[in-house]
Amino acid sequence: MEVGAERGLECQKIMDGKSSDNDVDKAIPVCCLKARAAVPESDAKCHSTVVSGWFSEPRSFSDNVSKQLYYNNPMWPGEAHSIKVEKILFQEKSLYQEVLVFESSNYGKVLVLDGIVQLTEKDECAYQEMIVHLPLCSIESPKNVLVVGGGDGGVLREISRHSSVEHIDICEIDNMVIDVSKKFFPELALGFEDPRVNLHVGDAVEFLRNAPEGKYDAIIVDSSDPVGPAQELVEKPFFETIARALRPGGVLCNMAESMWLHTHLIEDMISICREIFKGSVHYAWTNVPTYPSGVIGFVICSTAGPLVDFLNPINPIEKIEGAVEHQRELRFYNSEVHTAAFALPSFLKREVSCLRDSVTKGVLAS
Amino acid sequence: MEVGAERGLECQKIMDGKSSDNDVDKAIPVCCLKARAAVPESDAKCHSTVVSGWFSEPRSFSDNVSKQLYYNNPMWPGEAHSIKVEKILFQEKSLYQEVLVFESSNYGKVLVLDGIVQLTEKDECAYQEMIVHLPLCSIESPKNVLVVGGGDGGVLREISRHSSVEHIDICEIDNMVIDVSKKFFPELALGFEDPRVNLHVGDAVEFLRNAPEGKYDAIIVDSSDPVGPAQELVEKPFFETIARALRPGGVLCNMAESMWLHTHLIEDMISICREIFKGSVHYAWTNVPTYPSGVIGFVICSTAGPLVDFLNPINPIEKIEGAVEHQRELRFYNSEVHTAAFALPSFLKREVSCLRDSVTKGVLAS
Repeated sequence: MEVGAERGLECQKIMDGKSSDNDVDKAIPVCCLKARAAVPESDAKCHSTVVSGWFSEPRSFSDNVSKQLYYNNPMWPGEAHSIKVEKILFQEKSLYQEVLVFESSNYGKVLVLDGIVQLTEKDECAYQEMIVHLPLCSIESPKNVLVVGGGDGGVLREISRHSSVEHIDICEIDNMVIDVSKKFFPELALGFEDPRVNLHVGDAVEFLRNAPEGKYDAIIVDSSDPVGPAQELVEKPFFETIARALRPGGVLCNMAESMWLHTHLIEDMISICREIFKGSVHYAWTNVPTYPSGVIGFVICSTAGPLVDFLNPINPIEKIEGAVEHQRELRFYNSEVHTAAFALPSFLKREVSCLRDSVTKGVLAS
Repeated sequence: MEVGAERGLECQKIMDGKSSDNDVDKAIPVCCLKARAAVPESDAKCHSTVVSGWFSEPRSFSDNVSKQLYYNNPMWPGEAHSIKVEKILFQEKSLYQEVLVFESSNYGKVLVLDGIVQLTEKDECAYQEMIVHLPLCSIESPKNVLVVGGGDGGVLREISRHSSVEHIDICEIDNMVIDVSKKFFPELALGFEDPRVNLHVGDAVEFLRNAPEGKYDAIIVDSSDPVGPAQELVEKPFFETIARALRPGGVLCNMAESMWLHTHLIEDMISICREIFKGSVHYAWTNVPTYPSGVIGFVICSTAGPLVDFLNPINPIEKIEGAVEHQRELRFYNSEVHTAAFALPSFLKREVSCLRDSVTKGVLAS
């Protein structure tokens, strides 16, 4: 690793432009810091998920306190991703879930709901930018957009790059997530400052049931994993209300788990969506290091109506004036990454049979 | 998670067609197995990297034994990926490194060198297939191929899909890796059975120094991380000997770390390669769940001579007779994934300045 040993903190600066005020850090990039391993760790012990200063997701320990964690993380047994905790900043139980914020040593601040990492400052860009621009760049001049979940504000921040948008509804069930984001994640919560945003704190299923038919050009479902409060959000009646609330040729982008870990869930979602969305249904994925298996996928659909060519965005972000730099520069998404997100590994096409043909045809035709 | 609760082990069957003989497993997909958390874990304690039945990579504990691990893993401090160990199958110190093989609960068998995961049966396809077919599908009728490292045989297995290839040299420094792979990873080691393979156990730097000029159509560097025995493999003299051993318009594909964690290393490699390889130099990436941050990248270069269009493979795998099914079906790679691998996130293009223009132009022109 001597190659990089005299350089600055390049890789840490990528995401946030910050550099540590620790002298050792300034001299040596953190990813080369053999020496750093010798520095003793402070034991942050004020939260049950913190063991010797590390936050650990689904790791199952033999003592009972830590075993609770495993119960909260049924989505990926047999492995764990641990993030080193510098300081616990917030922990409280809301009406719906346990909310935890900590400062990590390498990923910036981290938001955890019910023991599952929702976002880190370092890699949230890969998720927020993709879940928004994949759908919004695929249609001409989106005007009315609905966000389901997304209480941290990151999705709103990304939608606000689109100058054509006139009205943004957001329906988030947990007020505490919004408050916590405003306090600890100002770079995400700034999304709420856009005057086009209308916040509805409440149940999205209920909200959608009452939404006017055909109101939205795009709906973005930024939910947590389908356990706990988000359970209904992967079921058929929910997708039906979404389709109803979309205009003809309107689009849905829905968080859809990991292709390595949850193909049965993906298959379920895709088959439900194929029944309901008569335009097209695709699967796309992106790399988010702090999500299980390092990826997250999206189910992207359009209703019957004007054809939506998701793979070749009609409304490229680079051509929307000011969009790339709006509030802060795009960090992950660009039009090449957009098209690439639809290229699916062979095992996924084999496993999720309904993905096999349409996507291949689409990409090859692009 | 009720959605998937009555289904079989779909997501586990993806990679290996196996299913567990545990009755509970048969009824419920493992990724939905809340119940499983209650099953007590067997404590496998026969290796220092195993704590309560979990193998943990760079996690730093306060006791000295485990701290050793951190010293061996300087590439990604501040986080850890842990894989649950079912059984330690092999552990020995070779002349060059510590070799460990264990059976994991969710990723099949795992090969670890000096405390760093090299491959797991579940996701090795994403790495092996990409590092081979990205270069070999980019040139017409590759005949002579050299593999540096790759002692597990997986790269050989993938090369053998290419019927045009007449001669494969492999230079691996550590005989123990080869022996261990033949014993525990037959699905990878079968690559050694191809009669076109010529095995050279020794130092690749030395081997390349003595290689005839212009001998190879393609060279694949499947090295471990550039600490320990692989250190020389990211330095300029090494790349010079590679370029010398390649024919005009010959190609190199070299493992090149994570875009989230090691941009300074990537920048170093790209700038060195731009000096030496006068054809073209690109960066591509793929998702491998058990590698740090869930991704691994490749530096892909060609020497001066016939132009190589890496982004639009001239020799698509789907058109090589029998290649997709040879020995075992391709699991990850296909021509869409090939092109998509070159689409780079905006932060990477911003950070690694020499990637900024050429790659964008290439992808847009495709």
